[in-house]
Amino acid sequence: MASMNGMAQTKKAITLNDVIPGGTNFRNLRPEYVYTAWWGDECVELTVDACSKVDKKTGAHSTLFGIDKINSILEKNKTGKIRNLLYAAFPYGKKTQVLVTNGKFYALVDWTKETVVKEMILPAGASAFEFCKESGCFSYVSSDNIFVVDNGGNSHQVTTDGSHDLVYGQSVHRNEFGIEKGTFWSPKGSLMAFYRMDQSMVPDYPQVDISTRIATLVPDKYPMAGCKSHVVSVGVFNPATDKTVYLKTGNGIDRYFTNISWSPDEKSVFVIELNRDQNHAQLVRYNASTGDKEAVLFDEKHEKYVEPCNPIVFLPWNSGQFIYQTRKDGYNHLYLYNVDGKFVKQLTSGKFEVKEICGFNNATKEVFYVSNEISPLKQNAFALNVNTLKKRPLGNTEGIHTVALSESGKFITDKYNSAKVPFKADIINTATGKQRNIFTAAEPMKDYEMPEIKVGTIKAADGVTDLYYRIVLPVGFDESKKYPAVVYVYGGPHAHLVDDSRFYGARGWDLYMASKGYIVFSVDNRGSENRGLEFENCTFRNLGVEEMKDQLKGVDYLKSLPYVDANRLGVHGWSFGGFMTTSLMTTYPDVFKVGVAGGPVIDWKYYEVMYGERYMDTPEANPEGYKNTSLLNKAANLKGRLLLIYGGNDPTCVPQHTLSFIRACIDNGTHPDLFVYPGQEHNMRGLDRVHLHEHITRYFDDFLK
Amino acid sequence: MASMNGMAQTKKAITLNDVIPGGTNFRNLRPEYVYTAWWGDECVELTVDACSKVDKKTGAHSTLFGIDKINSILEKNKTGKIRNLLYAAFPYGKKTQVLVTNGKFYALVDWTKETVVKEMILPAGASAFEFCKESGCFSYVSSDNIFVVDNGGNSHQVTTDGSHDLVYGQSVHRNEFGIEKGTFWSPKGSLMAFYRMDQSMVPDYPQVDISTRIATLVPDKYPMAGCKSHVVSVGVFNPATDKTVYLKTGNGIDRYFTNISWSPDEKSVFVIELNRDQNHAQLVRYNASTGDKEAVLFDEKHEKYVEPCNPIVFLPWNSGQFIYQTRKDGYNHLYLYNVDGKFVKQLTSGKFEVKEICGFNNATKEVFYVSNEISPLKQNAFALNVNTLKKRPLGNTEGIHTVALSESGKFITDKYNSAKVPFKADIINTATGKQRNIFTAAEPMKDYEMPEIKVGTIKAADGVTDLYYRIVLPVGFDESKKYPAVVYVYGGPHAHLVDDSRFYGARGWDLYMASKGYIVFSVDNRGSENRGLEFENCTFRNLGVEEMKDQLKGVDYLKSLPYVDANRLGVHGWSFGGFMTTSLMTTYPDVFKVGVAGGPVIDWKYYEVMYGERYMDTPEANPEGYKNTSLLNKAANLKGRLLLIYGGNDPTCVPQHTLSFIRACIDNGTHPDLFVYPGQEHNMRGLDRVHLHEHITRYFDDFLK
Repeated sequence: MASMNGMAQTKKAITLNDVIPGGTNFRNLRPEYVYTAWWGDECVELTVDACSKVDKKTGAHSTLFGIDKINSILEKNKTGKIRNLLYAAFPYGKKTQVLVTNGKFYALVDWTKETVVKEMILPAGASAFEFCKESGCFSYVSSDNIFVVDNGGNSHQVTTDGSHDLVYGQSVHRNEFGIEKGTFWSPKGSLMAFYRMDQSMVPDYPQVDISTRIATLVPDKYPMAGCKSHVVSVGVFNPATDKTVYLKTGNGIDRYFTNISWSPDEKSVFVIELNRDQNHAQLVRYNASTGDKEAVLFDEKHEKYVEPCNPIVFLPWNSGQFIYQTRKDGYNHLYLYNVDGKFVKQLTSGKFEVKEICGFNNATKEVFYVSNEISPLKQNAFALNVNTLKKRPLGNTEGIHTVALSESGKFITDKYNSAKVPFKADIINTATGKQRNIFTAAEPMKDYEMPEIKVGTIKAADGVTDLYYRIVLPVGFDESKKYPAVVYVYGGPHAHLVDDSRFYGARGWDLYMASKGYIVFSVDNRGSENRGLEFENCTFRNLGVEEMKDQLKGVDYLKSLPYVDANRLGVHGWSFGGFMTTSLMTTYPDVFKVGVAGGPVIDWKYYEVMYGERYMDTPEANPEGYKNTSLLNKAANLKGRLLLIYGGNDPTCVPQHTLSFIRACIDNGTHPDLFVYPGQEHNMRGLDRVHLHEHITRYFDDFLK
Repeated sequence: MASMNGMAQTKKAITLNDVIPGGTNFRNLRPEYVYTAWWGDECVELTVDACSKVDKKTGAHSTLFGIDKINSILEKNKTGKIRNLLYAAFPYGKKTQVLVTNGKFYALVDWTKETVVKEMILPAGASAFEFCKESGCFSYVSSDNIFVVDNGGNSHQVTTDGSHDLVYGQSVHRNEFGIEKGTFWSPKGSLMAFYRMDQSMVPDYPQVDISTRIATLVPDKYPMAGCKSHVVSVGVFNPATDKTVYLKTGNGIDRYFTNISWSPDEKSVFVIELNRDQNHAQLVRYNASTGDKEAVLFDEKHEKYVEPCNPIVFLPWNSGQFIYQTRKDGYNHLYLYNVDGKFVKQLTSGKFEVKEICGFNNATKEVFYVSNEISPLKQNAFALNVNTLKKRPLGNTEGIHTVALSESGKFITDKYNSAKVPFKADIINTATGKQRNIFTAAEPMKDYEMPEIKVGTIKAADGVTDLYYRIVLPVGFDESKKYPAVVYVYGGPHAHLVDDSRFYGARGWDLYMASKGYIVFSVDNRGSENRGLEFENCTFRNLGVEEMKDQLKGVDYLKSLPYVDANRLGVHGWSFGGFMTTSLMTTYPDVFKVGVAGGPVIDWKYYEVMYGERYMDTPEANPEGYKNTSLLNKAANLKGRLLLIYGGNDPTCVPQHTLSFIRACIDNGTHPDLFVYPGQEHNMRGLDRVHLHEHITRYFDDFLK
């Protein structure tokens, strides 16, 4: 068991404004961070005011240019003005050119020639901007249509019939399957693949904006589980011919087109296609010029679900081979295939998850990746020789690492934090492993009364699996006393709560509650991420059921602690955690005295098709599962105090969830409490987030303290 | 000071299901009621199963017919079946015919000939049914169009372009100005006047129905103060010619057409027209055949507002004279005019309000009315000789009376209840005053532990005006103890809380709270009804301000009572009372510890044009008043615990009110509580009303007890 000791006396008490994102003092209490970018193999540190080259050996800084210089160049050109350089990019390793933006324009500025090489003034409301450095093309979406400005400055309107019903160039399938965007430039920038989504058949969820003089309707397409879904297709635009070809995917009804990627020669587009049932994926190759379907490279099936989240990646030194990621052996690993789909070899294996491919070193034939092979609580970088499968760690074995490769792959920036390290950034020579620290943050909360935070494992309800928990003890902890304890829960897939990041991942509110005399406890139940396929998919078709069993094991552990008052247990969670909180309050009504459920799923039939059906199938195919997990059917069981909170315009867990539960409680004579943040979406932002946590805290103070 | 003593020991404790409308035992604890109808000058008692003639001297009953007989006649005719006879009507004093309905059809049944004389099968969704007994015509509204079936059984579609934007034959101007319906048959039934309302220019308030599979939009036209309002006109349909003429009212923009009535000869239609500012009314006569405007009979102006609520009524014995009601001398009184608009005389006067004209006795030249001249707390019936102005009371001088005249006016049924009389019904011979009691209800709560209830007066904040209050003392009251006290408030125009009805008007919840150990107090502040024009209109352009001052006088009185705990004062109200509650909590944040505001107005700019602008003018004309009374501007002041509750589909105080206040509190860092009744409108109905009062009670128990 790891432990982190807090200190006491003459220190400051934590306030919500200190520790809640959006709080007035929050930014001051985040560890200082350093922004960097690679310029070829040179590391550039980015500040608001300047970009400086960092000497990889000494760490010494030499200024490349200041913001004033960039702005004078921009203003001379009548482009406009930028406000900071934190997101500056250096697309060309050999040119003294920096790409800057203020959101209204993008400009490529040559800081030695003091000229604006290229500029792109965006129309109001434009989004999805991309700059293809290989071709020099800009692309963006405006009013649901795609526009391209080519290297010669010629404007192309790629699509014309974009609308609320038909959207182009944007993320589709509600950002599931790793989809984050809707335009995909080819390796040399000659072609641009893009998404087209026809959602005319999807009903609008009627969101209401109450901030207008008279409240107004804000219709939002929302395909609910078992209902009609949108139809996606993929176009390929050629700026040279001004022509678009659509991939001949056939009838797109009830199919998912995911993980678009290009062959290095730009002749082929690869798509991982999935059926609506999400249990059969195919890697398909299309001819980029004709749209013809050329080959199904291979299939992947699973009786529960397959979830392709990563496009294939070609080896930079061998355009005949690519890396494919799959959890087919139980964990997410890298597999090498020939371009025709023939399996070559498995690159990584073991009971851990590869989290991300970071890049390659062409010279050494290494692929760099981040995985949690050292511990499920950690994420560390490795270099793996694709030929020999020889593996080397990059950086230390602590904490959660994020790495960025230089152009050649000879260097990385390695940024990390751990339970004991607030934030640290190193440059690592990937050949020698030599590190140069470029930044180490002090702990900004060192003057505060901090709680003791411990992590450890308990057995899951299956009696076998280890689950990681975190317990935050009250400030001024006295083990002879009895404390109320709040379980903070998430519990859903694609997320975890306990890891080796700062404070073991404890949230600001956990610390605050500890400062008020509460114990705050979290355990990552089966169904959550980082622990492999079976750990996750044991929840299939019955979301919440196994998860709750594991949470109760956490409760058993809490009750075993002499300083926990078993009569004063609370539970709180948001989103899937709101679902878990409401489920726990209504399934085990005698365990928790008080719960606060935020933005909850109440019945999976109100959730969207992609995420919902992956885990639950459709209501028609899995009526028992939907019935058993619907909290509408459990509203009558509510005994304790349960506060439900939602964003008034939540487009993710639409208000129908919470309102239907309230309705069901009324119908069954039970009495939840309620709060709403009008105008907010799925998560409260800004000062509202502080208010939210005041509100949550007050509820526990009212009824649990 | 009046007083009503409760009793104690071995009696039952009140539950919410006993005393809240919709509660499972509520109907059993309402005083028994007797339904009656006049058949000419015969009094008929209506029960579910039978109609019986009541001997006016002895009170003896003789059955006219049972429901089985009516149903066998109806079924023989294939008309259908009725479920009860409580709403049977006897349109013709000399015929053995009864009008019955089950909501899907209306039928005129001759119970001696055992035939269906006439039937009207309504289309699904039809509303606004009227049967014109003089002509034998039926009229109704279906899909916003008017249909008439004439005496010969011929169907007429009066209008064809009815829609969501253009509604016909329904109440207009949001039921203000005494408007309750949209079709008006002429005295002999030859013509039918009707309302047409063009609301295409009025924005829809986006109500959302969450009970559908995917939540759906329910657009509801809602003209907000200062915004564009609907345009009303009046048509006259002639079934004989199948033609419609519209009254030539000119441009109807920003005008109100109220109190439609007919001349006895059917040649003229009278309309009381009002400007949008509601300070200038005109009684206008139109030619019913041509629609021509014939004359403005007279004007009425007031610097604050005039509010015509009663159509003119012609004397049955003199078609050259009519009665007009106005508060121009400070109280609502009856005035006699010649048909050309020439003033004849004032019929009633004094510092009291005529509440209703009940009818006439043609033989004695008497008009019967109900007024509160005996006491502002009472409503009693009087007969007034129009020629001599000699006035006689009808029935006793206690309580709240409702009277219905027989055809000739020789008899009335006089139904009443008072603080001491649960319910009583008498037949009174209006000539002799002789009474025959036909029903006296027992007090159904006699086996319950009842609180002591007192009424009395305090001085208003103006130092002069008497205000009536009611105090409900806790069951088992011990004046040496200190009790928490809840002020129940309404405070708006057209309503009062304290009167001489059962329990002095105390509500079921008041009794329940008293049974739980709370004092419940109400005072009818200036601005409420029954006390004359100045009492009401002192609130003009600043709703809530004077009203709160008076409520604080009530608080002063409560604090003067040794058994009231001044540190545990609560306040609760609904609608205008929700506005008052929220206003009090945020204007005088140190007075009340806990408040519960239901369906509140938060800012009058979100309220509708007709009611809102009468009292507040437009936001443009009265920016200071809107600013001073907006609770959005007071959200920052909230200190105590305030629970806001609203009907999720409230079409009266739209959800924007409560949600905007919540938003303002969040923005100002204050913390109200919230609850919603999804699917409910302005007032909770059925079992939801019990749940509501459980919820309200729990809140006071949590934070005030």
